[in-house]
Formats: sequence, structure tokens, C-alpha cells
Amino acid sequence: MESTDQMRRTAQAVLAAGAHALRGGAYKPRTSPYSFQGLGEEGLEILREVSKETGLPAVTEVVDAGDVKLVSDYAAAFQAGARNMQNFRLLQALGRSRKPVILKRGPAAKVEDLLLAAEYILAEGNPNVILCERGITTFETATRNTLDLNAVPVIKQRSHLPVLVDPSHGTGFRELVAPMAKAALACGADGILVEVHCDPPHALSDGRQSLFPEQFAVMMRELRTIAAAIGKVM
Amino acid sequence: MESTDQMRRTAQAVLAAGAHALRGGAYKPRTSPYSFQGLGEEGLEILREVSKETGLPAVTEVVDAGDVKLVSDYAAAFQAGARNMQNFRLLQALGRSRKPVILKRGPAAKVEDLLLAAEYILAEGNPNVILCERGITTFETATRNTLDLNAVPVIKQRSHLPVLVDPSHGTGFRELVAPMAKAALACGADGILVEVHCDPPHALSDGRQSLFPEQFAVMMRELRTIAAAIGKVM
Amino acid sequence: MESTDQMRRTAQAVLAAGAHALRGGAYKPRTSPYSFQGLGEEGLEILREVSKETGLPAVTEVVDAGDVKLVSDYAAAFQAGARNMQNFRLLQALGRSRKPVILKRGPAAKVEDLLLAAEYILAEGNPNVILCERGITTFETATRNTLDLNAVPVIKQRSHLPVLVDPSHGTGFRELVAPMAKAALACGADGILVEVHCDPPHALSDGRQSLFPEQFAVMMRELRTIAAAIGKVM
Amino acid sequence: MESTDQMRRTAQAVLAAGAHALRGGAYKPRTSPYSFQGLGEEGLEILREVSKETGLPAVTEVVDAGDVKLVSDYAAAFQAGARNMQNFRLLQALGRSRKPVILKRGPAAKVEDLLLAAEYILAEGNPNVILCERGITTFETATRNTLDLNAVPVIKQRSHLPVLVDPSHGTGFRELVAPMAKAALACGADGILVEVHCDPPHALSDGRQSLFPEQFAVMMRELRTIAAAIGKVM
Repeated sequence: MESTDQMRRTAQAVLAAGAHALRGGAYKPRTSPYSFQGLGEEGLEILREVSKETGLPAVTEVVDAGDVKLVSDYAAAFQAGARNMQNFRLLQALGRSRKPVILKRGPAAKVEDLLLAAEYILAEGNPNVILCERGITTFETATRNTLDLNAVPVIKQRSHLPVLVDPSHGTGFRELVAPMAKAALACGADGILVEVHCDPPHALSDGRQSLFPEQFAVMMRELRTIAAAIGKVM
Repeated sequence: MESTDQMRRTAQAVLAAGAHALRGGAYKPRTSPYSFQGLGEEGLEILREVSKETGLPAVTEVVDAGDVKLVSDYAAAFQAGARNMQNFRLLQALGRSRKPVILKRGPAAKVEDLLLAAEYILAEGNPNVILCERGITTFETATRNTLDLNAVPVIKQRSHLPVLVDPSHGTGFRELVAPMAKAALACGADGILVEVHCDPPHALSDGRQSLFPEQFAVMMRELRTIAAAIGKVM
Repeated sequence: MESTDQMRRTAQAVLAAGAHALRGGAYKPRTSPYSFQGLGEEGLEILREVSKETGLPAVTEVVDAGDVKLVSDYAAAFQAGARNMQNFRLLQALGRSRKPVILKRGPAAKVEDLLLAAEYILAEGNPNVILCERGITTFETATRNTLDLNAVPVIKQRSHLPVLVDPSHGTGFRELVAPMAKAALACGADGILVEVHCDPPHALSDGRQSLFPEQFAVMMRELRTIAAAIGKVM
Repeated sequence: MESTDQMRRTAQAVLAAGAHALRGGAYKPRTSPYSFQGLGEEGLEILREVSKETGLPAVTEVVDAGDVKLVSDYAAAFQAGARNMQNFRLLQALGRSRKPVILKRGPAAKVEDLLLAAEYILAEGNPNVILCERGITTFETATRNTLDLNAVPVIKQRSHLPVLVDPSHGTGFRELVAPMAKAALACGADGILVEVHCDPPHALSDGRQSLFPEQFAVMMRELRTIAAAIGKVM
């Protein structure tokens, strides 16, 4: 999230194309302290406003145990990011909420580690954990991360928790998002988490992996076709 | 390949389910010299015989430049295995043939390295190279390798060569083969290379990742449904 | 840290062998919530007491931005653990302290990422950052992590910050600690961070990688010999 | 090897600094077919000639089972390269020789895989196998490969075979060669395999990782100091 206008335009586009929820980053954990860090509480205000306008439930990342209460006032669901997958204090604080938590797999985490991280939330009494595959760290440099779709059927064997796939962070390039989203659906994912920006070339972060709204609409149609073929409802 | 009977039963099953070619390993490159090493030339005889009976073209791995001529007498297409992806003498010898070569990606090879390995074959004059993603080496231990489906759309951007996916070696577990085969199709693969055995629990190698014939038949039906939905012909 | 007695016996042993500081874990970030989680504030009390008795400065891990003040009352220096290398709120809170911070490299972090994580501390005004190589995640399973000693000379080229090496977590096996500690010294490390337990077979965590006190003493003598040969003072 | 003159000048420099053997590449396995591929048999002639002049035993890489006899006429010892660590036909052919074989670890090979590859040579009757750590493939890009020195003490626990370390390929940068060579010695390596070129900036391959002759001489003095301190003879 960069501004109300940018968020509103993006939200209206994804709503029209069939999105079910609206994720926007107010607190952006960036590798460098000198990169854009997000709008903070101002971002949360924007998210809540645009969520109300569109009716799309708001999801946003929380990066510190001390922020859980504040963020809870603005969002319908939390995201615990890949860098914080083993920030156990944060997970425990999220476990004391009852709102859904999207828990992203860390870049060096085995599926086993992800499932154990989820236990930190579950053990505090919050059963609403949604796992998210978003790419692991490997030697391959053609993609930003290596989206590990194998994790989807592996998790389905071992856990009852729903699984999302994030092909935007998982690949790092918008050209790869639609093919990998379709693959995610075909191998059993329960949903797709994807970055869309109303003007990707001017995005303050992750522009290279953000879909243009038209691309998102095309992808959604393709996903619906595959979903129908395999007996899933979108 | 373990015997004529085992090969014949397997071939008839996959033919009935819609397979287009028959791959059998006569020379098996195994991590340990004390594991089953394949039947060698006897295996090639079996492959040729069962290929004739079923009409399925025979594909088999060749592991040394010195074997190319011999293997050429028995098979319609070659496989250059993952361990030999940078056995450049072998690739050059295959480049002097005109039969198709399935070139498998090495476990530590970037897509870039795979494309450059293909150049060793192409540069000798053989244009019939088929690339195959079969899993890369990562830290994840829930799967034998990490099948990297991202490679499929990445290769499609950079090369005109067809791409197969091998979810058997790529995952190492038969339960994961069908989901990943469907994902491969959905993200653009041109074909699937899969291990089937008429009696997997008694296979001499790779039994854990080999499909039962019935599983293969079910998977083929599912693949046909997805193929139809995305406008592909199988 | 498990008890005052265990800590005291261990501290006296390492003091006698020439250790310069005493690290003990009060808050243990564990992969599973069902593993021993550390003694918490009781552990901090023990650490402070044993530190006073032995004169060894106390170092301990802090796992949440909200704990920095509390831990500061007990310890002379902080450790930011590998799992928290990109817990930027924690790093910023440590940056507002003036006590030294040992920042451990995350298991999937490039050297570049580690240096940028250090910037989160430095940018808040705390110049006392000590980097620590402790093993990265790779495919190799003979060691728990792959201690990446290459990082030592790479960091020395790019930064003025001191570098420690932790061969205990880096390898996961006590037999490998002394050889890798010597190697760390030989390639330019400024210090070694190592796990010692007065009774490793009965340790509540990380016993397999903890040195027996006698092993630590032998290792310290060997390190002194090499240090003398390469003109370093220990 | 690029020419007799280049080889002679390099050989005289390393001889003067205390090298024990002379490795030169006549057959260079390169990622791309369009890179310099080595001088072939002409290179073997140069190697034999310079070896005779200097008295340094000649070591060279063999890349195909069909070349073993030819190369045997020119060299005192063979190298089986990292890309061919699982070219089992080549290993078996080397096992039927009696000359020493330096077997380099593949970039995705576990120590276990390396030891099993060595078995292919040993099982044919050649006991003269020397293992060589030369870097594994990881996500880190600050080095060309990640030299895994942990492999040295791990191999020492599991095998009686001698272990060399190649910090040139292992790191890819000449600035890192001396620190890592010293570390290799300190953790138990039996020898160092290192690239030196009389004029690195004009080398036809691997120039960035080749030492200047003066650097090699300085490194050898440093290694001798450490060797003396730890009771080893060089």
C-alpha cells in the first residue's frame, strides 16, 4: 500500500475480477533499512477504508507481538510473514487472537518446520491457521525464490490445515505468476495469494512480480476453467 | 527393467491407459556400486521386443559416449540422465545421432546450465532435444528431490525446445506423482515422464516412487480432463 | 541454562580453560512448542549470578523487541538469533541500546542479507555489532547445518565489523567443533562462540553438539598454538 | 593449460614456492560448448614435457572412459572432475588403472555420495583414491560455490582415504583462496589443490580464481607456519 488512491484502484480491479480478500502491506519487512518500509498505521487506515468500500475482507502482515492488538482493530485476518515464521513470540500472540492467521513458510523451512511453527499458534487456542507456500531458497537464480509446489500435496497428507500458494513472491516475476497459480490449483491448493498493482512499473516495492490488473483478470478466468474441470468451486 | 514378463505386463498396462512411449532402464546409474545396476544389453533386447509387441516407441538411458551406437540399434530415442547432464562427451556423441534425446536437468543445474548442456547436442547437428525437469537438490527432505515446476515457464520464455516433467524422480513418492503431474500440465509442460511398475513393492529400484498401473490409469484420466479444459490435446 | 548448579559448573570449567565471556540461553527459540523453551527470567537471574561469581561477562539471546529492556538489566551483551536475523523490530530495539549485539546469520541469509540486517541496528545508533557465522541450510545431511567459513573472509572484505564463528550450531556434532574452530581461526575469525555443557548426554537441548569441558580445554590449547603461529593474541 | 610457455612459467613458479605436483587441464569440461575447451592431446604433450623439466608429477583431468588409456600415457595421476563424480563408467575405467585418482565432490553430492562414488573406483581394484572437496551448490552468491570444509572432518571420521581441498573452485575468487587454504589445513586436510596462472588477467578460463605466482608463494609460507604449529610436515 502506497496511497488511498493506489489501493482503491487496485482493490476495485481485483474485486471486479473475482478476488475474495484484499491484502495490503502496512508494515513491510525489507531486507534493507533504507528501502520503503510501508506506511504503518496510516496504511492500516487506508486498508480498512478500502475494505469497507469494496466489501473485501482485509488481510495484513503483522511483524511484532506488540502490534497484534493494533492490527486486529483494522484487519479481518493476519499474515505472519516468511521472515517471521519462527518469531515464536509473534506466533503465540497471534494464537491468543481468534482471527485467521496466514502463516507463510520461511525460505529455509522444511514443511515439517512450517507445521511445527503452526503449532505455536494452535497451541495457544487459535484454530484458524492457513498455511502458505511462497518459495524456498535454492541455488536457482532464474526465479527470486523457488516456489515449491510439492509442499501442497505433502501438507495435504500431513495436516488438515488449508494451504495457499503465493506465486508472486514464489517466483518474483509477473510472467511466471499465472502458470504457477494454475499449477497450484491443479495440485490441490485451496487458494492463491497474489500481488496486483494498478501501476506495477511505478510500485514502491515488488513491482517486478506484481500483476497488471488485466493480467489478474485473465488469470482468474483461466483458474475458473481449471477449477471447473477438476470439480472445485471458486 | 527386470525381466521380459515384468516389462511386458507394465507396457500393456500403460498402453491401455494411453501412454505414448515406453521408457525402460537397461543401464541404471546408481549412487552405490552395490545396488542393482540394470540388465545391460539383455535389457535392451527386452525393451526392443516389448516395444515391437505394443507399438510403443522405446526410450532408454545411455550412460557413456561409447554406448551410443549400440543403444541406437535398440531404441527410438535416448535419455541423458541427470547425473550425466554435464557429461559433455556423451552429449556430443548424442548430437551426432539424429534420434531424439531427452536431456534431464542435473540436480544442481540452473535452467541456464541445462540450456547450455542442450547446446552441446544441438551444436553437433541434432535438433531433436527434449528437456526434462526432474527435481533439484534442496534442503527439503519431505521429498527425494524438489521438483522445480517454475523451470517449465522459465524454459518456455527462453527456448523453443519441448519440456517434459518427471514427477517420479522429482518427488520420490508415488502419492505425489499425480498431483505434480497435473500441476506440470497446468503450467505448460509438453509431456510427463513417469515410472510405472506392475508390482512396485517388489521393484528392484525406485519402487517407492513407481505408480501402480491402476494409479497411472486414474492419473491419465485426470490429465485428459485438465488438458481439455486448457485446450491441449493429449 | 537448566539450573544454577549446571551453569556454575560449566562456567567454572570454561573460565579455567580461558573463555572470555559466558553465554547462556534463558529464552530458547525452539522449532517445536513442545520442546524445552528455556527458564525465562529465572534463567536471567542464574546467568547474572554466575557471571558475577566468575567475572565472565554475560551474553544472552533476546527474542522479542519487548524484552530488550528486561534482558538489558541482566546481560552485558545481547544475541540476536539466526531465526530472528530479520526480525527487524527486534534489531531496531537493539539498535537503541548501546550494549554489544551478536547478530547471527540466518540459515537462508546471504552474507549481503546479514550485512543489511546489521544496518538495522547500526542505523538506530548502536555501533557495537558483532556478526556471527553459524551455518546455513543446504542439502548436506552429515552436518546439522553447513558452517560456511567462506563468509569470514568475504565479510572481512566488505565490512569493518568483527566476526565470530559458532561451530556448535554450525555443524551440530561435538566431534566437528574443534576442527572447525581451528579452521575459523585460520581463515580470520575474531572469535569462537561454542556450546559447552558440564554433562552433555543429559542436556535438555543441543546436547549432541555441546563439548565436554575437557574437550573445550583441549581445543583452547590448540587454538592458542595456531593463534601464536599466525600472530594473533587470544 | 594454454601454451607451453604459459605452463612452463607457471610450473617453475610453483616449484620454487614448494608445490608437490603439477595439475594442468587438457580437457576442460565447460558449461557452454562455446567456451575454451582445452588443448586436448596437445595439452597432454605440454604437460608431460613441463613435468619432466620440473620433476613435478603431472596430474590431469580425464572426462571419458574412452580416454583413460591415452591420458595414462601422459600423466602420473588422474583427476575425475566434479561434473563427472557420478560418471560411473569413467570411475570404473579409472578403477582398472593403478594410478592415483583425485575424485572431486560433485556440486550437489552429499559426503555419503562422494564416498559411494569412490567405491566405484575401489571396487575395480584401484586403492589409490584421493577425495577432494571443491565447493557445493548453495544459495550464496558471494562465492562461486560454497567450499564445505565441514566435509574434511566428516570424511576423516568415515573413511581412511586422504582428502584434498580446492579453494580455487570452492570460492571462485583469488582473494579467498589463501584464507580458505589455511582453514583447510587447520581442520585436517591432507593437501591443497590450487589454481595458479603466470598471468591471471589473461587466462582463458578461471582467471578470477587463479592466484598470481607471488600470492601462491606467500600462501605457501603461511601454510608452512600453520603446519609446523599443528605438527604436520609439508
